[in-house]
Amino acid sequence: MSALTRIGGRSLAEQLPDVRLLPGPVYSALASGITALVVDGRVPTETRLPSERELAAALGLSRATVTAAYDALRAGGYLASRTGSGSYVTVPVGRRPSSRIARWSTVGEAGTVLDLSCATLPAPPGFAGVVAEAADALGPYLHGDGYDPAGLAELREAVAARFTARGVATRPEQILITGGALHALDLVLRLLVGPGDRVVTELPTYSGAPDTVRANGGRLVPVPMAADGGWQVDQLRNTLRQTAARIAFLIPDHHNPTGAFMPDDERRAVLAAARQTGTTVVVDESFVDLGFEGTARPAASFDPTVITIGSLSKPVWGGLRVGWIRASTELTHRLAALRASIDLSGPVLEHLVATRLMRRLDDIAAWRRTELRPQRDALVAALARELPQWRVVVPTGGLSLWAELDAPMSTSLSLLAAQAGVVLVPGSRFGVDGTLERFLRLPFALPAAQLDDAVRRIADVWAQLPRTGPAPRPLIVA
Amino acid sequence: MSALTRIGGRSLAEQLPDVRLLPGPVYSALASGITALVVDGRVPTETRLPSERELAAALGLSRATVTAAYDALRAGGYLASRTGSGSYVTVPVGRRPSSRIARWSTVGEAGTVLDLSCATLPAPPGFAGVVAEAADALGPYLHGDGYDPAGLAELREAVAARFTARGVATRPEQILITGGALHALDLVLRLLVGPGDRVVTELPTYSGAPDTVRANGGRLVPVPMAADGGWQVDQLRNTLRQTAARIAFLIPDHHNPTGAFMPDDERRAVLAAARQTGTTVVVDESFVDLGFEGTARPAASFDPTVITIGSLSKPVWGGLRVGWIRASTELTHRLAALRASIDLSGPVLEHLVATRLMRRLDDIAAWRRTELRPQRDALVAALARELPQWRVVVPTGGLSLWAELDAPMSTSLSLLAAQAGVVLVPGSRFGVDGTLERFLRLPFALPAAQLDDAVRRIADVWAQLPRTGPAPRPLIVA
Repeated sequence: MSALTRIGGRSLAEQLPDVRLLPGPVYSALASGITALVVDGRVPTETRLPSERELAAALGLSRATVTAAYDALRAGGYLASRTGSGSYVTVPVGRRPSSRIARWSTVGEAGTVLDLSCATLPAPPGFAGVVAEAADALGPYLHGDGYDPAGLAELREAVAARFTARGVATRPEQILITGGALHALDLVLRLLVGPGDRVVTELPTYSGAPDTVRANGGRLVPVPMAADGGWQVDQLRNTLRQTAARIAFLIPDHHNPTGAFMPDDERRAVLAAARQTGTTVVVDESFVDLGFEGTARPAASFDPTVITIGSLSKPVWGGLRVGWIRASTELTHRLAALRASIDLSGPVLEHLVATRLMRRLDDIAAWRRTELRPQRDALVAALARELPQWRVVVPTGGLSLWAELDAPMSTSLSLLAAQAGVVLVPGSRFGVDGTLERFLRLPFALPAAQLDDAVRRIADVWAQLPRTGPAPRPLIVA
Repeated sequence: MSALTRIGGRSLAEQLPDVRLLPGPVYSALASGITALVVDGRVPTETRLPSERELAAALGLSRATVTAAYDALRAGGYLASRTGSGSYVTVPVGRRPSSRIARWSTVGEAGTVLDLSCATLPAPPGFAGVVAEAADALGPYLHGDGYDPAGLAELREAVAARFTARGVATRPEQILITGGALHALDLVLRLLVGPGDRVVTELPTYSGAPDTVRANGGRLVPVPMAADGGWQVDQLRNTLRQTAARIAFLIPDHHNPTGAFMPDDERRAVLAAARQTGTTVVVDESFVDLGFEGTARPAASFDPTVITIGSLSKPVWGGLRVGWIRASTELTHRLAALRASIDLSGPVLEHLVATRLMRRLDDIAAWRRTELRPQRDALVAALARELPQWRVVVPTGGLSLWAELDAPMSTSLSLLAAQAGVVLVPGSRFGVDGTLERFLRLPFALPAAQLDDAVRRIADVWAQLPRTGPAPRPLIVA
C-alpha cells in the first residue's frame, strides 16, 4: 500500500460534476467537486492528482483556477505532498464524512445544519447507569492481566445466550468478541481471503465494506439489488457460480442502505448456491433488532456454514466499540489466534458494559423501534409530498431508505444541499465505482420535524439543479 | 491464509525435545512437546501434522503412542480436523500462553503455581476511581455518534502534551489512538509494508512482533542482540544496507525481553543508517516509563522520520486497550484513513479513562518503578545464588530479564518447571525460528518472595535435567 497511484487529467475531468453549475467561484467549485470524489471513495486517498497544467487543459479552465483549487484543497487537508511523489489526495484526520462535506459549505439563512450523512444514533436513556454497574463489576478483573483474545467470558456467554433465545442454539465457544461489525468483517476477510479472491457484495452495500475488502487484497464483485428493493437471487446465484467467489457478504436483515429484508426462501436459495460453489456466506446482522413489523428471524441464516457478524453500534451506540462473530468452534479458534497477533484483546471495561447491555437488549431495541418508526413515516411522507418524482421503497426496518432520483446527480445535489444546511452522502458512496449517482441514502435518525425540514430544503435545491436524464418514474410506496 | 501448511515427520521429530527425558508416560510427554512447539510458534497454528505412522517411524515410537498423544492434543484443544484437510494444530480459544502450558502440568506438593510467563501487571491502586471519573465525563459524548477514527480529541491532546513535556514538541494531529501497542504496530505495517518487504527486528524481540509482520506479508530479518545485552549497531547497519529493509522495528527504551536501553549515540547511528537505506524506523516505547535509573530520554528517537508507538498496557494495565502512534501529521492522516476501513474507531469510555490516566501517568509510573526495582533485585540475587552458571545482564528498566542458560534446553526446562508449579515461556518464543533455546525470559512482575521461591524451584528442575552442551560461562552482572 506504500505506492501512490495516479489519475490522469482527462479521467479526473470525466468524473467531476460540471463545476460551472455549482455556486461560488469556479476554483472553489472545482475544489468542492474533487473533495466530493475523494470523500465518496471514487478517487481513492493516496492518488496523485494530475499537474495543474494537465487538469486545466482537460477542463478548459485557466491554470490559475486549478492552482487556486489545489491551494484550497491543501488548506482544507485534502491534498498533501510527499518528497518525490508529488501531490496526492487524502482526508483530514478526525473528521467524519459529514464534516468533510460541511466544511465546504456556508450555512446562511437556512439556519441549523441537518446532518443526514450518518445512519447513527445517540446512546439510549439509561446508558450511563449501565456504565456505572459495569464499573462496579470491574474490581475482580483488575487483579488479572486483562488479556483475552476471544473476549470476556461473561460477554461471550451473554451473546451466545441471546442467539439461543432467538432459537439458534449457540455455545460461548462459537462467539468471538470484536470492536464492532467492521472489525468483525475485517478479521473474517483477513483469515479467509487471499490476494485476488472474489468477494461478492450487494450493490449498494455498507459503505465500509468495499475498503475493507480491498485492504485485504480481495476483488469486489457487486451484485445489484432489484429495482423494487429486494434481492436478485438468480443473478446472485449466477455470480457465485461464474466467479467462484470465496466470500459472499450479505446484509439480509434490513439491508444497509435500502432497509430490505430477505425472505427465508431466498436465503435458502442463496445458501444452496453458496454451498455448491464453496463460497462462505458472511451475514451482517447489524440491523436485525431494528425491524418494525415483528419480522420472524429466518432460520436459514443460521446454517452451520454461515458466519454471522453483529454489533451493538446500531441498536445501542456506536461509541461503544463492541461487535461479535458467530461461527463454528473451529473457525472461532482460528479467528482468536489471528486476533492475538493483530490487536491482542478487547477492553475489559467495555466488555462489562456490553454484557449488561446484551441482557437488556430486547428492551432497548423495542424502545429504538418505537422512536424510529414514526421518523421513517415522516420521512416517507415528506418525500411523497415534496419530491414525488423520486422513487422510494419503504423499508421495513433499519435506519435509512434508498431513494432513486429522477436524474443521476446525487453528488451535485449533495454539494448544493450543504449550502442549504443539509449534509448528505451521495449514493455513489455505497457503490464501488461511482455508479450509483442516481441514488441517495436518507437516514431517518433525526426527529420527524427535522426530517420534514430537511426534505423541504433538499427539494428546493433539487429544483434549482439544471439536469439532463430520462423521464421520471412513478413513486412506489410498498 | 486459508491454505494449511504441512510439517513432515522427520522435521517435527528434529524440533521436539527428547520425550523420553520428560516425566510421565511417553504419549503424554510427546503431547506436551508438540504443545510447547505450537505455543512457542515454532510450529505455526494451521499446520498439518504428519500421519501417526510417519511420526512414529521418525521418533522410533509405537504407532499407538503417537495415536494416544494426538488424542491428548485433540482433547486439550491443540489439534483439530477440517474436512479434506486432515488434522492441524491450533490453540484453545481464550487461554493465555501460560494456561496453555499449565494445563499439561500437575501441581503436586510444590504448592501454589507461580506464573512467570507474562510480563504483565495488575491495575494500579486508584484505577477504579479513574474509571468513575471517566464515567461521569461520558454524558456529553452520548449525544453524538461516538465515531472518531483518530481517537478522542482530548486523549490525543493528553498524549501530545506528555510528549511535549518530555521535550519533544508534539501536536495532537500527530497522534493516532489505537487499541494498544500491537494494534499500533499492525496498523503501521499494514499501511507501509507490501508483500515480501523486509522488516528488521531485534533478536530476541517482543513475542507478538513476528506474527504481526508475517500477517502483513513482511519478511522478518532478525538482528541478534550482543552477548553483553546491548545492540550490535554495526550489524544492524549492515543488515539495513544489505536487505534494503522497509521497516526497522526497535525497542530501545528497555528492550523486551532483555531490558537493555540504547544509548543516544547508538540511536543516532541507527537512524543515520536508516535514512541512507530509506528504512522507516518504528520505535516501541511500551516500557519507556519503567526505567529505574532516571535515564535521560534520548532525543534521537524523535527524529521527524521516526514513528513512535506507545501504550498504557505496561505502566498501567493491559485490560485497558489504549495505545498510540506518534508520526508526522501526514502519516497520521493516512493511518487514520486506513483505520476507518479496519475497525472504524476506538471506544469513547475507554478513551476517557485513558485521558485521565495520561494526566497522572508520572505518579503511576513512579509507583510502578518503586514496586518493580526491589523485585528485579530479588530475582537477580536469587539467580546469582541458585543458578550461578546462568549468565544475566541486569536490566535498567522494563519488566523482565533475559537469562542465558548453560545448556540449550529452555523448552525442556519449561515443560519440567510446569510440573514443579512454575510457568515459564522458553526463550525460543522470542525468536523467529526456535533458535533461542539457550535463553529464558524471566519477568519480575511477582512479589520478591515469590520470585525467590520460583528460582529455587527452577534450580531444582534444572539440576534434574540431563544435558549436553558447552562449558558454562561466568555470570556477568552489569
